[in-house]
Amino acid sequence: MLRAQHIETPSWAYGNSGTRFKVFAQRGVPRDPYEKLADAAQVHRFTGVAPTVALHIPWDRVDSYGDLSAYAEDQGVRIGAINSNVFQDDDYMLGSVTHPSPEVRRKALGHLLECVDIMDATGSDTLKLWFSDGTNYPGQDDIRARQDRLFDALEKVYERLGEGQRFLLEYKLFEPAFYATDVPDWGTAYAHCAKLGDKAQVVVDTGHHAPGTNIEFIVAFLLREGKLGGFDFNSRFYADDDLMVGAADPFQLFRIMSEVIAGGGYGPHVAFMLDQCHNIEPKIPGQIRSVMNVQEATAKALLIDRAALATAQREGDVLGANAVFMDAYNTDVRPLLAATREEMGLDPDPMAAYARSGYFEKICADRVGGAQAGWGA
Amino acid sequence: MLRAQHIETPSWAYGNSGTRFKVFAQRGVPRDPYEKLADAAQVHRFTGVAPTVALHIPWDRVDSYGDLSAYAEDQGVRIGAINSNVFQDDDYMLGSVTHPSPEVRRKALGHLLECVDIMDATGSDTLKLWFSDGTNYPGQDDIRARQDRLFDALEKVYERLGEGQRFLLEYKLFEPAFYATDVPDWGTAYAHCAKLGDKAQVVVDTGHHAPGTNIEFIVAFLLREGKLGGFDFNSRFYADDDLMVGAADPFQLFRIMSEVIAGGGYGPHVAFMLDQCHNIEPKIPGQIRSVMNVQEATAKALLIDRAALATAQREGDVLGANAVFMDAYNTDVRPLLAATREEMGLDPDPMAAYARSGYFEKICADRVGGAQAGWGA
Amino acid sequence: MLRAQHIETPSWAYGNSGTRFKVFAQRGVPRDPYEKLADAAQVHRFTGVAPTVALHIPWDRVDSYGDLSAYAEDQGVRIGAINSNVFQDDDYMLGSVTHPSPEVRRKALGHLLECVDIMDATGSDTLKLWFSDGTNYPGQDDIRARQDRLFDALEKVYERLGEGQRFLLEYKLFEPAFYATDVPDWGTAYAHCAKLGDKAQVVVDTGHHAPGTNIEFIVAFLLREGKLGGFDFNSRFYADDDLMVGAADPFQLFRIMSEVIAGGGYGPHVAFMLDQCHNIEPKIPGQIRSVMNVQEATAKALLIDRAALATAQREGDVLGANAVFMDAYNTDVRPLLAATREEMGLDPDPMAAYARSGYFEKICADRVGGAQAGWGA
Amino acid sequence: MLRAQHIETPSWAYGNSGTRFKVFAQRGVPRDPYEKLADAAQVHRFTGVAPTVALHIPWDRVDSYGDLSAYAEDQGVRIGAINSNVFQDDDYMLGSVTHPSPEVRRKALGHLLECVDIMDATGSDTLKLWFSDGTNYPGQDDIRARQDRLFDALEKVYERLGEGQRFLLEYKLFEPAFYATDVPDWGTAYAHCAKLGDKAQVVVDTGHHAPGTNIEFIVAFLLREGKLGGFDFNSRFYADDDLMVGAADPFQLFRIMSEVIAGGGYGPHVAFMLDQCHNIEPKIPGQIRSVMNVQEATAKALLIDRAALATAQREGDVLGANAVFMDAYNTDVRPLLAATREEMGLDPDPMAAYARSGYFEKICADRVGGAQAGWGA
Repeated sequence: MLRAQHIETPSWAYGNSGTRFKVFAQRGVPRDPYEKLADAAQVHRFTGVAPTVALHIPWDRVDSYGDLSAYAEDQGVRIGAINSNVFQDDDYMLGSVTHPSPEVRRKALGHLLECVDIMDATGSDTLKLWFSDGTNYPGQDDIRARQDRLFDALEKVYERLGEGQRFLLEYKLFEPAFYATDVPDWGTAYAHCAKLGDKAQVVVDTGHHAPGTNIEFIVAFLLREGKLGGFDFNSRFYADDDLMVGAADPFQLFRIMSEVIAGGGYGPHVAFMLDQCHNIEPKIPGQIRSVMNVQEATAKALLIDRAALATAQREGDVLGANAVFMDAYNTDVRPLLAATREEMGLDPDPMAAYARSGYFEKICADRVGGAQAGWGA
Repeated sequence: MLRAQHIETPSWAYGNSGTRFKVFAQRGVPRDPYEKLADAAQVHRFTGVAPTVALHIPWDRVDSYGDLSAYAEDQGVRIGAINSNVFQDDDYMLGSVTHPSPEVRRKALGHLLECVDIMDATGSDTLKLWFSDGTNYPGQDDIRARQDRLFDALEKVYERLGEGQRFLLEYKLFEPAFYATDVPDWGTAYAHCAKLGDKAQVVVDTGHHAPGTNIEFIVAFLLREGKLGGFDFNSRFYADDDLMVGAADPFQLFRIMSEVIAGGGYGPHVAFMLDQCHNIEPKIPGQIRSVMNVQEATAKALLIDRAALATAQREGDVLGANAVFMDAYNTDVRPLLAATREEMGLDPDPMAAYARSGYFEKICADRVGGAQAGWGA
Repeated sequence: MLRAQHIETPSWAYGNSGTRFKVFAQRGVPRDPYEKLADAAQVHRFTGVAPTVALHIPWDRVDSYGDLSAYAEDQGVRIGAINSNVFQDDDYMLGSVTHPSPEVRRKALGHLLECVDIMDATGSDTLKLWFSDGTNYPGQDDIRARQDRLFDALEKVYERLGEGQRFLLEYKLFEPAFYATDVPDWGTAYAHCAKLGDKAQVVVDTGHHAPGTNIEFIVAFLLREGKLGGFDFNSRFYADDDLMVGAADPFQLFRIMSEVIAGGGYGPHVAFMLDQCHNIEPKIPGQIRSVMNVQEATAKALLIDRAALATAQREGDVLGANAVFMDAYNTDVRPLLAATREEMGLDPDPMAAYARSGYFEKICADRVGGAQAGWGA
Repeated sequence: MLRAQHIETPSWAYGNSGTRFKVFAQRGVPRDPYEKLADAAQVHRFTGVAPTVALHIPWDRVDSYGDLSAYAEDQGVRIGAINSNVFQDDDYMLGSVTHPSPEVRRKALGHLLECVDIMDATGSDTLKLWFSDGTNYPGQDDIRARQDRLFDALEKVYERLGEGQRFLLEYKLFEPAFYATDVPDWGTAYAHCAKLGDKAQVVVDTGHHAPGTNIEFIVAFLLREGKLGGFDFNSRFYADDDLMVGAADPFQLFRIMSEVIAGGGYGPHVAFMLDQCHNIEPKIPGQIRSVMNVQEATAKALLIDRAALATAQREGDVLGANAVFMDAYNTDVRPLLAATREEMGLDPDPMAAYARSGYFEKICADRVGGAQAGWGA
């Protein structure tokens, strides 16, 4: 099962990123979507489980998506989910699809529909919708009216989806909105998606919750309702820190993967995507490590002795059930994954193999001049 | 509108309460449900807006509910919501309706159905369901199976409800469960209630959220969906501190009441209930102050210039809209409420009037011997 | 006492700011430190209590600080605290004074000493030190070695301070560091300052704490130790949201001002500074409103009947003491402040007076071309 | 080094515990301090590293401490730290050493001094001071005056300490105080201990922090200052959940142990104590598992390649340093610990060995009648 795992990396992880305080530029960073795909292909080359790359529009807007898709395939990868962006145009200062002004809402909706066009052009089956919409001050806008406007836009996007296409609605507690975010939690995303139908599902970004939230509970619940569409994997100590997945709380990642497997979510219908900011670490190795962290958590979750667990649970054996669970977590699965990689014809140590490959030295030498990609473009 | 407000006090607020570290006994505390009703009647006597009293079963179990109801009316109050309790029997250590054992689940369901019988006997139209169910350790039980068991019980209670009866499902992030609570958030409560139908609604306890949660957003959203059944009002600085409502964050209470009014929730279909623990302050004045705090927040929310607010919101005038909102909050509404009380034939200062009444001295003298009421009985 | 209040506004509040997702440009924004001072002077002109302006180096670096100071006085204001910036140079990606490399540390220290030179040149008596230093990943650097390096730098800056000069050390839980910040809490700042001496004090930024932190406790404690140097006032619902002070939790601001007054901190030795980001609201009115919010909290805190409070506290009268406290908070002090302004020869309504003044229209017309000021410059 | 580890278990972990909602009684629970020591001796018998037992006064008050000490030695264990209790007498409702009333303060101080007497009688060298003192409502008492009273009591206890004796001051964010706790954070505890001298140190309870607090930073900082006296180990998902240590976040426990070792804290001068509530799991196995969890975290922390780590840190190799750190964490140390136990003459699997021993069946049969020990006695 580990060989069939599919983890999608995001094109924007290869560009520069940072905080409001500073974006530190790194060497060798791509200047356009083609170079991002080339970098993403390295992650797949060394891990074997990252065959698709998510795009972010307009950051990855190109003249010909057919050309871009063909280039991706040349590199050994494919285009994955299309991510809309309705937060960087000056018009969106007070919202996009929930903005008080109908003109702004129309513009935002137009962008979302354009993203479906790009899905058609690239063959992507998944649209990821994240809205930064919200308010910073109490009274600033009508919380309820904004929900009406939101649902209106979602409905129109839903209608536009073709066969085999779906959208994933993302929620986030806060940032950049600092008082009331319009899709702040899974309940809000779920309620809208439940009304719309099967093509609307919820995506869980592991960094978008209030402190203390039990994320694996949400995963289990959404799977029970048939509404878990995928993950944006990253990790956090504080807010939406967007660190490498598994870096801050590897046990949490294991618990999440355990619920995914228990709930039948380990398969192509749930998208396992990374969404991270490598602010201070090199980009490609940061993605390779993240992919490996998801693999390790998955391998451990697959090791859980489900029969023994079920027995202990049925008998109310608190310590026994926990011990079965922890036995899997405490196992060192790195040898197993190394062996799996060798079976797949890969180097058992992707980090070392990438380092030895000379790719980083090559892009540092080649990518001189031009504007480095980042969140702004 | 302020004169018609209806705030329900809970019978258990008049008994002793505390933390796991210590329950400090207070003087004059009731020894049985009758004495609790007598104390609750004092709150209504001096505020004029607290005509009903919530019961908690089995704490308030009596031989004759007809007799109890008649006593309540003698005192000038009525029986309000019936609160079930499936967390204090030794059988419920690992859960009640979500327990792995079918026998325990049957017992818990039996209690819930008994509560509906008591509704029939007392004329109460509202059943409040709070489940302490959950797990303390990862792996301890199957998160998803527990949802199946939960829904099964909710369905059976729903079917038992008579005409004009409803249940309110309460959610809580944690405590007493410390890993995964079975109804941890509004989304879970909403999803179950949405499937069941109109007689199932969500109750918002203002102390049951993760840090940073925007409660008024939840209120606005549930009202939009027709699923806000009521409130358990209290306040908190940290976790479920159960302090007097409005004591920790009066601005939050104002924002909540503003959404209630804007969303059409100010009326008999939304129950405004108090749920607090007066661990160190005297019980009856603690309830009087809490009722007054809700009144003040309501009065301020009613003062919002909604037309001016809508205009500023439509124009994207961030500071202007916020200023309209804050103008209402910053108004001192105590004179207005004092005048309203005088129009109702009440003393303008309920706290002082109660203190002068001699009631406290009387109960301290009368209530000698017997076992003081508390969470244990 | 209200007439003598002194609230410092920060030069950077007048430039553009935003989140990592987007900085929305606003009209009329200053292009250089002179224009920032001109804007700050408007806040003082209409409130009468904002006579000084904090500078941020290198954002406010000019050829002649004497010239800048003279310009400030022409506008009716003065230069306040000097804020150092060791977080925006590419060399500081992994830290400044705590960086593993001695060269980087030397460079950072050099900047801090330059700021003391600027204090000498401007007559400023206060240096504000905020270090974004920290790590994003466990193991990334040695937590303890970084403290040694930090203390070493602080010691050298301390020695450089002239007579009548001091530095304020700021702490912050997280952002931009996402694992271990080098000065994460007041305890760390306090411990370093206690070792250094009287010229080192702690500054409390009201947005820099973990959820649930009781800020007024910290204020009371630092005042008791003689170590409260000042405030960076703003407000937050979630993390370091940098909203207008008093906007998110006006009751908290009141509690803080109450401890300031009770602890003898209301005077020139404690600096009341604003530090906010007006991402979506207009800058100058955002500052005026913030100044007014501090005034209102101060006025309420001054109204507390301290004798009655002390009596109730001594008698263990929980509700009585809280009532004395809340009486002050619930008072509408806006008429009092309007009267105070009139006594000072000001318009009683600073927001309206500024709006009528035509200043905003003027700067929109005048400030065409050039690069708008922001965090980047 | 693993063989020399010393982990102290608390007498109260063997009695019943619970939440404010319910204390579930368990079978075989001790009825007096002697039976608690007998149970604690089982933990040492099977783990070999838990030779001491902390007492809690008055819960463990006996007529003859000499007799109790002798009994402990018969069982193969010794008396460890003495824990004071100034939170369960009715007089302490509004505080103990910080109470407004001098009589109550005197009584509380008397108890603390009695605890030093018990140290003399038992040969214990450590007094653990935790104060539940604080307030529930703003204004309820004077925050600063309470600090004065606190310091006064600490000073008197400090003076009473004999040679070779010390006290550890514990801090806690909240519970049972819900507004302002008198020792809420490490900074407060540190500041008081720093003034008093070497015999006063800070104890870190891993469940007593605000969400997001980096505990290992505090550990590193206190070690740097010579002020880390010990740990109260447990784990939490939400508040002070008091779960088995390592159960909620094993990676955090590893990071803490890593700082302990790096900072020279792994030795007898830092006390490694457990402080947990086994509300739903059996007590003795809960303690055995907790001891094993600390051992596993310690073993992993000892495996860190410190030279490689230092090199990567010095070179600013973010991913490399993190990888060295994670390599140790990801190692399965259970075989190593099993081998260590066999070298010590113990069963390699303490949980299974205890289960086979028949001890639990024996205490269930023997301990009939009498009052089970709990927090109340």
